[in-house]
Amino acid sequence: MELIISQQKQKDWPAVWAVLEPVFRAGESYPLPSDVSEADAETYWVKKDGYNAVAYDDTGLLVGVYYLRPDQGGPGAHICNAGYVVASEARGKGIATALCLRSQAQAVAMGFSGMKFNLVVASNAGALSAWRKAGMEIIGTVPKAFDHPRVGLVDAHIMFRDLKP
Amino acid sequence: MELIISQQKQKDWPAVWAVLEPVFRAGESYPLPSDVSEADAETYWVKKDGYNAVAYDDTGLLVGVYYLRPDQGGPGAHICNAGYVVASEARGKGIATALCLRSQAQAVAMGFSGMKFNLVVASNAGALSAWRKAGMEIIGTVPKAFDHPRVGLVDAHIMFRDLKP
Repeated sequence: MELIISQQKQKDWPAVWAVLEPVFRAGESYPLPSDVSEADAETYWVKKDGYNAVAYDDTGLLVGVYYLRPDQGGPGAHICNAGYVVASEARGKGIATALCLRSQAQAVAMGFSGMKFNLVVASNAGALSAWRKAGMEIIGTVPKAFDHPRVGLVDAHIMFRDLKP
Repeated sequence: MELIISQQKQKDWPAVWAVLEPVFRAGESYPLPSDVSEADAETYWVKKDGYNAVAYDDTGLLVGVYYLRPDQGGPGAHICNAGYVVASEARGKGIATALCLRSQAQAVAMGFSGMKFNLVVASNAGALSAWRKAGMEIIGTVPKAFDHPRVGLVDAHIMFRDLKP
């Protein structure tokens, strides 16, 4: 599938929220209250100091979104953090891996030298597999760091990829 | 040394800033620009969703400060993050370890079940030793995550302690 990826504009938000909302409501992957308001979700997702992207397929369907931002400030700002959501109707097609790889190219273009994920829920096998295919490696695990609505307390992995050539 | 620790009040800020400023200006331990403004430093240090403490010695000198806050939101909010600064004239007396242990007790009282540090600069041997004495363990290392003004790019450790009884 060809992905047409561009920077998210203000006008994209309603479509982006339609992709994010079911994932945030499920409460199984992002560290947000499952009843998060749309306004708080927008503040969380669309970072002033970051970059947001939208990915459409060749039929014009919004199939995924991502954000990039500095993981830390000042002397830690050369490592980026990123997050991804794939639309429910577009899963199982490798879009998460493709989005992650494309976001790494964007991160390099923005001058970042590494990418770090802070909380990959250990029960989220699909995500773990997708990120590994995109070159991300587990560099640490926080025990019982995520309270999953069905599984209970589960570990959260920290993942990293060096982006320097 | 006896430490008298209490919740930071608005009136404490000038004294707190006097302790923080030289550490932030040095740029060797916190992920802030070394020229951070006082206002931005206060926003960084005094978190609306967290807890801030001041520690005085028995002569009335402010010897150290710390913050506690949820490391993540929603299903990740049971793990806290914390930061500490010991006044330059009070170092080498075990205050960092004592502050960390006291903050762990405070974290338990606030309902947190674990404590996580996200960026312990690997060249900061004093801090690493202090946190280890307070039961914190390295659970992962981000390669070259911190641009140290003298050492250059150095690793940053992620540390964790389970706070459940």
